[in-house]
Amino acid sequence: MAGATAVISAKAEISASVKIGNFCVIGDNVSIEDGVEIGDFCVIGHTAGGEHAGKRLSIGKGSVIRSHSVLYEGSHLGPNLQTGHHVLIREGTVAGEGLSVGSYSDIEGDCTLGDFVRCHSYVHIGRGSKVGNFVWLYSLVTLTNDPLPPSDIQRPVTIHDGAVICVGTTILPGSVVKMGAMVPAGSVVQGEIPAGALWAEGRGLHVSYLCDTESMTRHPWTRHLLNRYPDRVHDRLKELEKGIMSSRSSGN
Amino acid sequence: MAGATAVISAKAEISASVKIGNFCVIGDNVSIEDGVEIGDFCVIGHTAGGEHAGKRLSIGKGSVIRSHSVLYEGSHLGPNLQTGHHVLIREGTVAGEGLSVGSYSDIEGDCTLGDFVRCHSYVHIGRGSKVGNFVWLYSLVTLTNDPLPPSDIQRPVTIHDGAVICVGTTILPGSVVKMGAMVPAGSVVQGEIPAGALWAEGRGLHVSYLCDTESMTRHPWTRHLLNRYPDRVHDRLKELEKGIMSSRSSGN
Amino acid sequence: MAGATAVISAKAEISASVKIGNFCVIGDNVSIEDGVEIGDFCVIGHTAGGEHAGKRLSIGKGSVIRSHSVLYEGSHLGPNLQTGHHVLIREGTVAGEGLSVGSYSDIEGDCTLGDFVRCHSYVHIGRGSKVGNFVWLYSLVTLTNDPLPPSDIQRPVTIHDGAVICVGTTILPGSVVKMGAMVPAGSVVQGEIPAGALWAEGRGLHVSYLCDTESMTRHPWTRHLLNRYPDRVHDRLKELEKGIMSSRSSGN
Repeated sequence: MAGATAVISAKAEISASVKIGNFCVIGDNVSIEDGVEIGDFCVIGHTAGGEHAGKRLSIGKGSVIRSHSVLYEGSHLGPNLQTGHHVLIREGTVAGEGLSVGSYSDIEGDCTLGDFVRCHSYVHIGRGSKVGNFVWLYSLVTLTNDPLPPSDIQRPVTIHDGAVICVGTTILPGSVVKMGAMVPAGSVVQGEIPAGALWAEGRGLHVSYLCDTESMTRHPWTRHLLNRYPDRVHDRLKELEKGIMSSRSSGN
Repeated sequence: MAGATAVISAKAEISASVKIGNFCVIGDNVSIEDGVEIGDFCVIGHTAGGEHAGKRLSIGKGSVIRSHSVLYEGSHLGPNLQTGHHVLIREGTVAGEGLSVGSYSDIEGDCTLGDFVRCHSYVHIGRGSKVGNFVWLYSLVTLTNDPLPPSDIQRPVTIHDGAVICVGTTILPGSVVKMGAMVPAGSVVQGEIPAGALWAEGRGLHVSYLCDTESMTRHPWTRHLLNRYPDRVHDRLKELEKGIMSSRSSGN
Repeated sequence: MAGATAVISAKAEISASVKIGNFCVIGDNVSIEDGVEIGDFCVIGHTAGGEHAGKRLSIGKGSVIRSHSVLYEGSHLGPNLQTGHHVLIREGTVAGEGLSVGSYSDIEGDCTLGDFVRCHSYVHIGRGSKVGNFVWLYSLVTLTNDPLPPSDIQRPVTIHDGAVICVGTTILPGSVVKMGAMVPAGSVVQGEIPAGALWAEGRGLHVSYLCDTESMTRHPWTRHLLNRYPDRVHDRLKELEKGIMSSRSSGN
């Protein structure tokens, strides 16, 4: 079902159950699966340059793309993607299921993202970044990739499963944030953050010490947010929690 | 007056004097008062989920909504609202008169804003925030709400009348910025900032010591910006100034 | 060549070789030179207020304006401009050749930018800023202009040739960043940064000490990025490099 005003390429493969908003532009190299909803003023399958030119953009079933978003050709986005408004996803992005990308966020291309990655608003994921499963990137988080700006050196960031990067944080080029580590608001991070570590300049703590005393909610977050995820991935989350807790003995 | 290209619901209540730009999409549950101007590519009355679904969006007289903005149903926005371009205002927002929202700003829903609140660009107001009258939020200010990210705990921020939050500042969950307090650029604020205080880690000053020596302009800002506001609110601004100055004796 | 859906003023001067995307809106006071490409959902020649009202917007040959961008009337933009998506360029902007403006960036008007200025995403250039040639502004860089916020005082920022401002940096009002200086990620800068200086609170270094040891790439950046620029400006870049290196003897 498409608004009469949408401009849709005859070459695009679009399931009959897809809803397409007003004034959308859908390009040639696009596959959209069952039940996807696309908001108004989106560009789906924007032409890419270089090695991704003419490659297919696939959008998995049940995804919701909100208005004014731009998705380039040459990316593979898993089922149940959710975007906010004004989102940009460039070519060569490979994302698992349940990716959530907040309004005004920008995934710059050639990135790999696991399952259930959640980005809030104004998140900038630099070209070539690698982000694991169940990762949280809060508003204004930037993953950079040039270690000597400006240069042509590319040293992207790696974020492992279950890590939490809080609002306004910049991750400097080549940094690695290990499993379940947490970076507080407003940080500038360089280097390797150990598994389960609560990052702070000059000292190390473990995330399991983080607790909201009013509600007695306690990290790792996998404990209190289990019900946000489909039952079939609960075992993966419990495994992740075990991994994070076991990192406590290693000195963090 | 609407461009021939706009897609407008027959159920929307739109005053005859409203100007609607090209390619706008206006939903069912919308009331737009006299003299409002809406730029191109806007979505007005975007459908909301949950308790706000199907509720009315009202836009007060004399408002200007600039291009590519998205306003959800279920909000009440007072007269003389001004938005920049690419602005997002989610459902359940209640705003007084003269709200100004800079380009790329995002009011995340269920927020209450007083009269004459002014937000610059890329301002992110987290769900449930409470913002008083005559408040200034500069570019890249973020009001957060989750004290133990990620969790389902909601502890929004409160900003009192006349407060000034400078560029690039993050206000952490549950924080309260009292009347006329000022937070400098690039801060990460947690807790309660006293009335009239110039916030700085480890020391307290009063905003009335702030002075531009070249022009001899001096805070509280209500002194030198009175003429930006309608005459009928000058008494409220003078009352605000008195309140801020009286906080000087209380140790700040 | 324009999409059938574009709304184009009959008064606009548009070269025959210009490509205009779907659903674009082109205003009255616009000159677009040969070979320009304009993406979908752009507003070109948005009406301006004040002294720039009704003045011409000129876009130089070979420029690429990406989707959802808004360019006001009353600006002069040189050849080979490149914008990302969702870009905003306000009235009274004068830019040389080869300006690159990343997605979600906002040039606030009455700014002067030299040749080959490169802005990444979410860059906010405050009204009245002066930016030289070959300058680099990374993501989330903000150039402010009000020294006593809020006030009506305007004291814009000046950035000289070849300077590099890294991600997430705020330049405070009236600051001057001299030739080839570099400001690291996440800084809040006030005052004057000397030529060639690597800015850091409380200490001074020269940019020529910056080196990526893995690739043995070394600043000034003009050395290793010469081939990104047209041959005809190589002499200007070598001159710039000489200038930056000569600043090393002056104590930085």
